[in-house]
Amino acid sequence: MTKPVIVISRPPTEEVRVAFDDYLDEAGEILFIADLDDSGRAAALANASVLVVQNMRVEFTEEELAGFGHIGLVQALTAGIDHVPFSKLPPDLPVAANPGVYADAMAEHVVAMAYAAGKRLMVEHEEMRAGNFNQFRLNRRMAGMTAAILGFGGVGRATARLLRPLGMAVHAVNRSGETDEEVEFIGTMDDLETVLRAAEIVVIAYSLTRKTRGLIDARALSWMKDDAILINVSRGEIIDQTALYERLTAFPDFTACIDAWWVEPVRHGEFRIEHPFLELPNVVASPHNSAQTGGGLVAPLKQAAENVSRFLAGEAPRFVAGDDEKLN
Amino acid sequence: MTKPVIVISRPPTEEVRVAFDDYLDEAGEILFIADLDDSGRAAALANASVLVVQNMRVEFTEEELAGFGHIGLVQALTAGIDHVPFSKLPPDLPVAANPGVYADAMAEHVVAMAYAAGKRLMVEHEEMRAGNFNQFRLNRRMAGMTAAILGFGGVGRATARLLRPLGMAVHAVNRSGETDEEVEFIGTMDDLETVLRAAEIVVIAYSLTRKTRGLIDARALSWMKDDAILINVSRGEIIDQTALYERLTAFPDFTACIDAWWVEPVRHGEFRIEHPFLELPNVVASPHNSAQTGGGLVAPLKQAAENVSRFLAGEAPRFVAGDDEKLN
Repeated sequence: MTKPVIVISRPPTEEVRVAFDDYLDEAGEILFIADLDDSGRAAALANASVLVVQNMRVEFTEEELAGFGHIGLVQALTAGIDHVPFSKLPPDLPVAANPGVYADAMAEHVVAMAYAAGKRLMVEHEEMRAGNFNQFRLNRRMAGMTAAILGFGGVGRATARLLRPLGMAVHAVNRSGETDEEVEFIGTMDDLETVLRAAEIVVIAYSLTRKTRGLIDARALSWMKDDAILINVSRGEIIDQTALYERLTAFPDFTACIDAWWVEPVRHGEFRIEHPFLELPNVVASPHNSAQTGGGLVAPLKQAAENVSRFLAGEAPRFVAGDDEKLN
Repeated sequence: MTKPVIVISRPPTEEVRVAFDDYLDEAGEILFIADLDDSGRAAALANASVLVVQNMRVEFTEEELAGFGHIGLVQALTAGIDHVPFSKLPPDLPVAANPGVYADAMAEHVVAMAYAAGKRLMVEHEEMRAGNFNQFRLNRRMAGMTAAILGFGGVGRATARLLRPLGMAVHAVNRSGETDEEVEFIGTMDDLETVLRAAEIVVIAYSLTRKTRGLIDARALSWMKDDAILINVSRGEIIDQTALYERLTAFPDFTACIDAWWVEPVRHGEFRIEHPFLELPNVVASPHNSAQTGGGLVAPLKQAAENVSRFLAGEAPRFVAGDDEKLN
């Protein structure tokens, strides 16, 4: 009996090879595209039952994408699947995301950015470099603040678990308006205005979908406090770039902490911004590396492999994209 | 019966006047030096039972200091009393500090600096400004780190209460080697080497005394991990300035987070450093404003007033300086 073919388009570091051998060796025949020549690649894709992908936009040609009708599951290694060109794929091909595994690291990044903003670390560091030692310049108490967490999946919940013991109230928004997590408030997108008006800190932890793209527009920004701290560790496209820039220049006490940008190297081949955010004192910028804490690749690989395993064992795979997540 | 005279040398903002009236009106006659002319000042000091001071070095002449033999208690409004010129005061004059009231704000500042260092916020922000978007540059997981807290008074304990729920182990050092606080280890200065060798984060929360001045010298720095994060929110003089600079240049993964500097405007009339710390990428600098979170003056005033009240009621005042705290 021939084993199902699992084709992996991610460049195989040793860590990746070991992980897939460990988790999937019994379940199927594992082929790394990087090991194959052109005809081997064509044969592997033609025989594949499962495709494990990292950044689908750059890993396949349009012709290849259109020919994936026989594939049973595309499993992403990434939490977000906005790199998947759904419009170029056979319409019913199941594509599974790999969410949550970077959540704890990203939640810590949210803490770092929130505190850097509240304590004015970047601003006063710059001031000191300029020769100004402002010992009486007030910064902010973080305990007692209310944090709005938009999107209450893995990252949102992990963030709540760090912020609450630091003395903050958590007002979360998700699809169901329900959660088992301890929070001070849970609602849906219908509660957006109420939640934004009450928050000192706003954390964007949504995945990018048709409903969240552009959600934080000029109107949503106008609901936030003048001195709110807005943190995006998710996807740049959830915020209206021009509206945010206008907000930052009009409200100098408003701070934007941006880890997730609109046009970034990994997703788009370059870093590009339409406005000079990096010249503003009220921006805390990081290069979308909130998940990059090292030693953390094993957990995502394992979760993806387990999902492939479920599928090959005849069970329904987890995290399969719904229609409103099919963006491209 | 005449009331005891309480002379206050701190410039009286409305907040200060209200607080002292509220807390001490019954206990004594309150005189603000700022309200008095020269002869009034001389009479007030001659009759004072208690002196409430902010920065003794600049508030009195040497002649006045030498004449304070009749005063029962000098009460500082500050947590640290290294501004008190003990050598110029009558030797047995009791001087009380006012510790702990800024502790929660300062502990938050420690969190901000530790996370900014671990997540490389300042470094990557600078890199982005220079056009480098390093999406795969690793930063650090904070959970699982061990924090050494040197000095386990108000600030040290408040810091422990924030770091432990964030997933860190706390190894604390104090005089007694005992604490009621939840910690993973408590020891004394005899354990310094062991504690420093084990720590990813070292927090200096000691007050400046004869024993702590220069404590963190080249040898102590050599015990720390190559990539340790050293945070000083206490007094610059506890660290050997040159040894720290040499450490930072020799170990680029070592980070110093400096809120408390060696020569600062409030204590010394100017900000001055012997080495260009602000040009190093592995320094996170703030202008000794860790306690400045606003609305926080009431608590210190209240605690100081309560201590004065205890003294005037015939009880032993709290926080009276011991001989090893008499630095100047």
